[in-house]
Amino acid sequence: MPGEFEFIEWIRQQQRPSDSVLLGSGDDLAILKWPDDPLILVGVDQVLDGVHFDSARHDPRSVGRKVMNRNLSDCAAMAALPAAAVATAAFPAGTSLHDAQELYRGLDDAARIFDCPIVGGDTASWPGKLVVTVTILARTGALPPLRRDGAKPGDSIFVTGSLGGSILGRHMTFQPRIQLARDLAANWPISAMIDISDGLSRDLAHIARQSHVAAVIDAAAVPIHPDANVPRSAGRTPLQHALHDGEDYELLFTAPRCDHPEVHRIGTIIPGDGVFIERDAQRQPLPPLGWEHAL
Amino acid sequence: MPGEFEFIEWIRQQQRPSDSVLLGSGDDLAILKWPDDPLILVGVDQVLDGVHFDSARHDPRSVGRKVMNRNLSDCAAMAALPAAAVATAAFPAGTSLHDAQELYRGLDDAARIFDCPIVGGDTASWPGKLVVTVTILARTGALPPLRRDGAKPGDSIFVTGSLGGSILGRHMTFQPRIQLARDLAANWPISAMIDISDGLSRDLAHIARQSHVAAVIDAAAVPIHPDANVPRSAGRTPLQHALHDGEDYELLFTAPRCDHPEVHRIGTIIPGDGVFIERDAQRQPLPPLGWEHAL
Repeated sequence: MPGEFEFIEWIRQQQRPSDSVLLGSGDDLAILKWPDDPLILVGVDQVLDGVHFDSARHDPRSVGRKVMNRNLSDCAAMAALPAAAVATAAFPAGTSLHDAQELYRGLDDAARIFDCPIVGGDTASWPGKLVVTVTILARTGALPPLRRDGAKPGDSIFVTGSLGGSILGRHMTFQPRIQLARDLAANWPISAMIDISDGLSRDLAHIARQSHVAAVIDAAAVPIHPDANVPRSAGRTPLQHALHDGEDYELLFTAPRCDHPEVHRIGTIIPGDGVFIERDAQRQPLPPLGWEHAL
Repeated sequence: MPGEFEFIEWIRQQQRPSDSVLLGSGDDLAILKWPDDPLILVGVDQVLDGVHFDSARHDPRSVGRKVMNRNLSDCAAMAALPAAAVATAAFPAGTSLHDAQELYRGLDDAARIFDCPIVGGDTASWPGKLVVTVTILARTGALPPLRRDGAKPGDSIFVTGSLGGSILGRHMTFQPRIQLARDLAANWPISAMIDISDGLSRDLAHIARQSHVAAVIDAAAVPIHPDANVPRSAGRTPLQHALHDGEDYELLFTAPRCDHPEVHRIGTIIPGDGVFIERDAQRQPLPPLGWEHAL
């Protein structure tokens, strides 16, 4: 990329003053002042051109938004508050300064909504395709983090929103459910939570396996997004899209009860292991097909 | 990559118990218990096949070691103690489980020396070449972080070790100077510090610019590594290799004084701006050629 140092200098100028950032981009490491909380949550996510997005169809700003939002959705899944992020980009040789700036703007578009400063990063150019990673630091904000391993027999299974067909566009434009997750964690006895990235069937299997329980989905109760009615591959029903497509970035959680108006009860946790689906009083195993990164 | 889920499960089994890791890989975010210190240092670094290493010549374990050590060297540059790391890998389609495990082992080889747990990550496979990133969290360990912006006129300029020709092998095998940096920070009035990754000329320019001072290198005092005597490109003298090659991962710092036995005094900070080199009482500007990612 021509102007790599110019780009780095430009990024420094984008940083907004923040009480929590003692030293931002431009040194070997950033220095953060952490609130009075002994816990730090941390995670990282990458997006690859041709796998998680398609540079022929998705502009750099959308790509930046997506990778930041994937990380913010991980914060939602723990009911945590984003605190700071660092990012890397491997740019294809010949990337314009404008496109690099647009990528950064996309990252920042998503992060600033949650008051999450981007405090550092690393860029390089290479003959390969665009790779972007974001690492996010989060804080508990006085709510205990919601893990995947606490589901108990007798709990109900809930999802927010509706599922399926995100490939038609929502996988690029979703909004991380941070406020909703905080609201749920503060007001209901949530026992386990995850965000739906790999697909309901696979992500529910994560909860079941890590909690040492089984999960039974009520087929009639799964909220199906209108996009799931436009099959992208022959032979899948809208319900199958809702169960397996992934990249919905909705919350999937278990709790003895929850009557929040934005959530749907879709099933029950029972003793045992595995994920099952029940239809007309028939119970069958539901293999975790998940999302296979097809665009 | 065949066996991606098997690989992720294997990584979980590699994690060693740690008092500071309440929840490691396997949830949406890891949860760390931070020591009683309000500061968190954070940085990220990526390595790209064909740019920072060559997969035809460098085995996956060496690549893993290198990317972790680059991050650990950033901790050294701040005189900070590594606390935890997260990593991503974009594997070329067809990467064997063995090679993926070797990459992880390389990351862990480097991190465990500094008792730095790897607490999370993200993997995917794609048609492109190998990309690895590491994000590191560090703590001050009761020493103030050493920044780039504190150099003062009258300070001397010091380096550890000797420089040049790292491309012959040391760029893959260097040891981050964390203990030495801690020793220096605890016992001498260091005003600015950086690790030499881009090259002495360019990294000294970072200190000079960020400190609003000029730097004068005494050509006769630059410690030249034996590898710098084997020119890899026509026309560069050993001194030029030492000044510009980069990837030495030695410490470059300024202080009013330092008589540590492992450091070399190579110049002086003066008022003004820019980097100069002095030879036979002749002072000339030293353009920051730096390292241009050529293998």
